[in-house]
Amino acid sequence: MRLAVIPGDGIGPEVVSEALKVLGEVAPAAEITNYDLGAARWHSTGELLPESVLGELRQHDAILLGAVGDPTVPSGILERGLLLRLRFELDHHVNLRPARLYPGVRGPLADAGEVDMVVVREGTEGPYTNNGGLLRKDTEHEVATEVSVNTAFGVRRVVADAFNRAEERPRKHLTLVHKTNVLEYAGSLWSRIVEEVSLEHPDVTVAYSHVDAATIHLVTDPSRFDVVVTDNLFGDILTDLAAAVTGGIGLAASGNLDITRRNPSMFEPVHGSAPDIAGQGLADPTAAVLSVSLLLDHLGHKEAARRIEASVAFDLATRDQASPGTTQAIGDRLAALVSSNVRSVN
Amino acid sequence: MRLAVIPGDGIGPEVVSEALKVLGEVAPAAEITNYDLGAARWHSTGELLPESVLGELRQHDAILLGAVGDPTVPSGILERGLLLRLRFELDHHVNLRPARLYPGVRGPLADAGEVDMVVVREGTEGPYTNNGGLLRKDTEHEVATEVSVNTAFGVRRVVADAFNRAEERPRKHLTLVHKTNVLEYAGSLWSRIVEEVSLEHPDVTVAYSHVDAATIHLVTDPSRFDVVVTDNLFGDILTDLAAAVTGGIGLAASGNLDITRRNPSMFEPVHGSAPDIAGQGLADPTAAVLSVSLLLDHLGHKEAARRIEASVAFDLATRDQASPGTTQAIGDRLAALVSSNVRSVN
Ligand SMILES: CC(C)[C@H](C(=O)O)[C@@H](O)C(=O)O
Ligand SMILES: CC(C)[C@H](C(=O)O)[C@@H](O)C(=O)O
Repeated sequence: MRLAVIPGDGIGPEVVSEALKVLGEVAPAAEITNYDLGAARWHSTGELLPESVLGELRQHDAILLGAVGDPTVPSGILERGLLLRLRFELDHHVNLRPARLYPGVRGPLADAGEVDMVVVREGTEGPYTNNGGLLRKDTEHEVATEVSVNTAFGVRRVVADAFNRAEERPRKHLTLVHKTNVLEYAGSLWSRIVEEVSLEHPDVTVAYSHVDAATIHLVTDPSRFDVVVTDNLFGDILTDLAAAVTGGIGLAASGNLDITRRNPSMFEPVHGSAPDIAGQGLADPTAAVLSVSLLLDHLGHKEAARRIEASVAFDLATRDQASPGTTQAIGDRLAALVSSNVRSVN
Repeated sequence: MRLAVIPGDGIGPEVVSEALKVLGEVAPAAEITNYDLGAARWHSTGELLPESVLGELRQHDAILLGAVGDPTVPSGILERGLLLRLRFELDHHVNLRPARLYPGVRGPLADAGEVDMVVVREGTEGPYTNNGGLLRKDTEHEVATEVSVNTAFGVRRVVADAFNRAEERPRKHLTLVHKTNVLEYAGSLWSRIVEEVSLEHPDVTVAYSHVDAATIHLVTDPSRFDVVVTDNLFGDILTDLAAAVTGGIGLAASGNLDITRRNPSMFEPVHGSAPDIAGQGLADPTAAVLSVSLLLDHLGHKEAARRIEASVAFDLATRDQASPGTTQAIGDRLAALVSSNVRSVN
């Protein structure tokens, strides 16, 4: 297994180092190459993602990314020039974001019930296409536009993937989240494609929720969701909220997948670089470790993936929630659990 | 006071009738004209908002709307043809949505703290402009676009209003919510205008939050917010979530304001027509009653507005939360409280 690692900024390197520790327990022979992309490189060379590096990244089986973003870099530069560029260049059309409330974890809701959902967020279209502009900038007549671009090709592959995932889950339930009552054109395309693809999946029950109502459901009745399929921006919003509801961004993993496998998929915690707590051992590496589990699952190492997830579940059920330990201590615990194979525990 | 009332669909007529009962206690001389816009009219005549009716509505001091939407009408028809058309024709650029966790009300959060915020949502621009289209519909090469349109004129008047409101509140704090790291053009316009207007309000502290992070804050630390200013779509999403966090959509009021007062402003509960519970006396009219309070406040009847809000606060603090009574019973209680002037209670 050839793995490219982009530790990135802030807490990125810290959490990635623990994630690799855990990976080492199940895949000691993995070949790992580090890429120093991020704020430091941009400051010293002005580079965000050189073509040559992109070419090298393509030669790997998968990419593990820590976090990108730094207060010393103007907002958006690293996000658009590095993170989103990777997602778009490598055609990461399925942005996979599970949200599970693990036993022992207390989220902010008084009574969340059982939450075990997965958001299939479209990753290469919508309002993320950098399609828009400024007219008459800095005058009182300025106009700023942002164009959400949605294609039948792009929507169908993501909707198909979401139905496939729903088919494999016990509840076989899929919710389309959109804002069809206002976004008439994109809403129509998404609705029609969900209807079409649903015909091939008669076992899967289908629901629809407007994005505003979906945020209400996520805090009043999150267990109603199984698989959610949605566009890039709504998915961005809903997955942060779902992460919060299931115990916080310290636990939320994600995969940016090219389902065709033409390009390496990229795995990253949903959290950002959290510069305020960087370098102090305060970051929870669990989200990064769970991202490694998604990575292994994607590459077909189902057993190793499950072993890591079970170790995380065990640790979450037994850790002192108020003081779970330093970044390194949590990493050590998870690595030990994985090596002792706690499969039977959960 | 000349008031136009659009009871609308579903629970709309029920909650409006209680809201008018309460209004009657403070403004017995109000002249009220009903307009039967909504699903029934569309079914029988095909009309959504005839020009003649729009002309009549303009002759009023304010509009009270119940709810719009019915399962027998294709999604979007009533929303776009009636509700949004009213907001756009009457230039309701400030969509004002307070969210307050009243004493005695239990929201879904285990520990919400004190929540007393107001969202100033832009109401006439953004992705709500019906600006987009379908290319090659029903082919595999279909493309659907949605254009978010943001103007300096449109953003500035809303941001200015938000700063004015922040200035009048004890905490004098304003948060811009956007997604500037991805929506480069609209994000740039909003950020620059907030910066500009902030210079005229040195007393107001200013924060920024990405919309995804803002949903996390709303469930982990909602008391951080005072005034939030944001675009039409983000405001739609955040205000539903804020309503949920503060005890639900049965309590959330809103005003669609034309700050210039060239057109009548329109007041409505944030909730929809809830056809599943319509006609059964199950709907909570509190959101509609609080919308009347916003209406009176907007028209300068500050004392009457406060009296209604205090009555609602008293009722919420003392009502049996599990069974607050029928729509009519709640309306009767609130009307009685308003008439007995409970000002001193809260
Ligand atoms: C950093 C930002 C560009 C990114 C996004 O909006 O996709 C992040 O919020 C995420 O969800 O991965
Ligand atoms: C019904 C719909 C068009 C409307 C909106 O999106 O503005 C509603 O959700 C609201 O918030 O008032």
